[in-house]
Amino acid sequence: MNTELPDVSLPSRLAASTEGIGFEELALAARNHGMPLEALRYDRTPIGLHYTLIHYDIPYLDPREWRLSITGRVAHPFRLSLDDLRAYPARTVRVTMECAGNGRARLRPRPVSQPWLVEAVGTAEWTGVPLARVLADAGVSPQAREVVFTGADRGTERGVEQDYRRGLSLDEAARDEVLLAYAMNGAELPPQHGYPLRLIVPGWYGMAHVKWLREIEVIEDPFTGYQNMVAYRDRQRADETGEPVTRIAVRALILPPGIPDFMSRTRIVRPGPVTLTGRAWSGAAPVVRVDISADDGDTWAAARLGASGGPWAWRGWTFDWHAVPGRHVLAARATDGDGNTQPVEQRWNRDGFANNLVHRVPVACLGE
Amino acid sequence: MNTELPDVSLPSRLAASTEGIGFEELALAARNHGMPLEALRYDRTPIGLHYTLIHYDIPYLDPREWRLSITGRVAHPFRLSLDDLRAYPARTVRVTMECAGNGRARLRPRPVSQPWLVEAVGTAEWTGVPLARVLADAGVSPQAREVVFTGADRGTERGVEQDYRRGLSLDEAARDEVLLAYAMNGAELPPQHGYPLRLIVPGWYGMAHVKWLREIEVIEDPFTGYQNMVAYRDRQRADETGEPVTRIAVRALILPPGIPDFMSRTRIVRPGPVTLTGRAWSGAAPVVRVDISADDGDTWAAARLGASGGPWAWRGWTFDWHAVPGRHVLAARATDGDGNTQPVEQRWNRDGFANNLVHRVPVACLGE
Repeated sequence: MNTELPDVSLPSRLAASTEGIGFEELALAARNHGMPLEALRYDRTPIGLHYTLIHYDIPYLDPREWRLSITGRVAHPFRLSLDDLRAYPARTVRVTMECAGNGRARLRPRPVSQPWLVEAVGTAEWTGVPLARVLADAGVSPQAREVVFTGADRGTERGVEQDYRRGLSLDEAARDEVLLAYAMNGAELPPQHGYPLRLIVPGWYGMAHVKWLREIEVIEDPFTGYQNMVAYRDRQRADETGEPVTRIAVRALILPPGIPDFMSRTRIVRPGPVTLTGRAWSGAAPVVRVDISADDGDTWAAARLGASGGPWAWRGWTFDWHAVPGRHVLAARATDGDGNTQPVEQRWNRDGFANNLVHRVPVACLGE
Repeated sequence: MNTELPDVSLPSRLAASTEGIGFEELALAARNHGMPLEALRYDRTPIGLHYTLIHYDIPYLDPREWRLSITGRVAHPFRLSLDDLRAYPARTVRVTMECAGNGRARLRPRPVSQPWLVEAVGTAEWTGVPLARVLADAGVSPQAREVVFTGADRGTERGVEQDYRRGLSLDEAARDEVLLAYAMNGAELPPQHGYPLRLIVPGWYGMAHVKWLREIEVIEDPFTGYQNMVAYRDRQRADETGEPVTRIAVRALILPPGIPDFMSRTRIVRPGPVTLTGRAWSGAAPVVRVDISADDGDTWAAARLGASGGPWAWRGWTFDWHAVPGRHVLAARATDGDGNTQPVEQRWNRDGFANNLVHRVPVACLGE
């Protein structure tokens, strides 16, 4: 730790009960952005609508000079250019990605960090080389247990200067669908999504999908770096180690019906039939059920599920609602094939991770 | 005005002196986003990094069904499909666009609305048909004075349900470089930038560049719609009419040097030479000078200007700074060919428009 850093790079903290969102949180919200919920209409989120969360700055990498290094406990360390990667057989996977901090801003007390409401999600088709294929070419040592991925983005965080770096178990890293992706929705990666290369770990929260990837190191001992051991832990107190944040918890979102008010974003609908739609996903198992409430959770009824978008992508749902004049709160709750469902009361942890509170949308139905 | 709307669509207001950013402002900040300042490196902002400000929802328009209507005081009212528009000779213009509310969040008292810091800007190459050509085909009446542009986005604002609609004088509308744009940076418009068609009015703040354009009406009397007469006025008190917000005020931004802290976004640099870069623009006249201060405005020196990006686009600048250990505040101030320059003290108006306060970037230079 740099001894001069403490006054520019402070420990994490909780907001006071009377404290609104501050300028530091606002600066993060102005840079990083959620997916406007009307974009739930798309199977595949258009570029610029998919959420982004960038820890430091978006680096600029010259593709002619950029190389990916494969190092550590491998028989044949080597470097790959973008053309080398494109020469491998390509695979495309549709993946719903969500920020581990999604929903953080409504926790009480509120962890001070990127202040997400519920929009930190998106679904893209990622194209690249299966990581397992590249690791096989490198010849992973029988003693190897983990793989460490390093990005080209650098900054400080709670007093620690670092390149963004994440470890992943070799078992997870070797899954067929884990990709070294050089394309998003059929085009080269945009700068903010990791150009020229990012890791894709379907089913996991966004922190695992290392952007601007420049090095892959195979190691024997468990990785103890900042992003695995300090950040991205589910803990109640600052002084406990907690549990690692891994796969995306089951969640459904509602495409807000009707029209919005500019400032309050309150939805306005007219009396009569309203077809509600939305999406649901889980990193643990396919979504098998979505329940909808039009009375803020007093009663629930099953939505119709749409076609599957594949094992790692969100699934559409529809629900017929008959709106009558008055104020209503719509709610959606998904259940996955492992029996996981969403809480109706807020679960809390100190850094605001893996939140999947039931989504609620207040609606004003105005007389004709 | 709908009499049931007041409780969901309230009048504008100012935040109390102790009031942090609230959930309504945060909901806007999560949807709309600024341009991360490191994207100042690009002459042309990549898709997804250009700022967006969407009053209501992003509508989905089926390009096979969509038509643009030209109506009102014209000899030959007609409708155009996307193919019809593409059949006209195309023109491409590079345009720096800025939200009229940029900088609003730091005003005291703070107008409660989209809480922009300084990032609500971007530069794109827009391709389309000069509006003057389409108006000529329609045969504008000699009595015509204004043109009204209607988008497909609908919502409520301060109690008024409306389609987004803006009027523009016929003189402004007939300028050669005013476009009906169907492409951005060489590709079809993204949904969030107005697919399939938007108006581009180079030099004006973003509110004039109507997205999801569906109707152009030529009128004789001055347009008195909400977005011209209620919103987008420079006023001191809520009860005065104020002046219309029109062209972009001169402004320079600094590409933040060094590396950031995640939470505070404070910049960290090492001692020694640092080349500062950034961009400057004005909607009134070309930028002719940029001055830089490394001591929070006590002393200023001229930056070197880069090549012009054309009459409607930002211009790069560079400045050699020698960083010494300690805390510094960098500042940039641009001047345009009409002699307009930026204030060093905050100018205030009730809705936070046309702000162009000098940009300041705090930097910590740490010992080697």
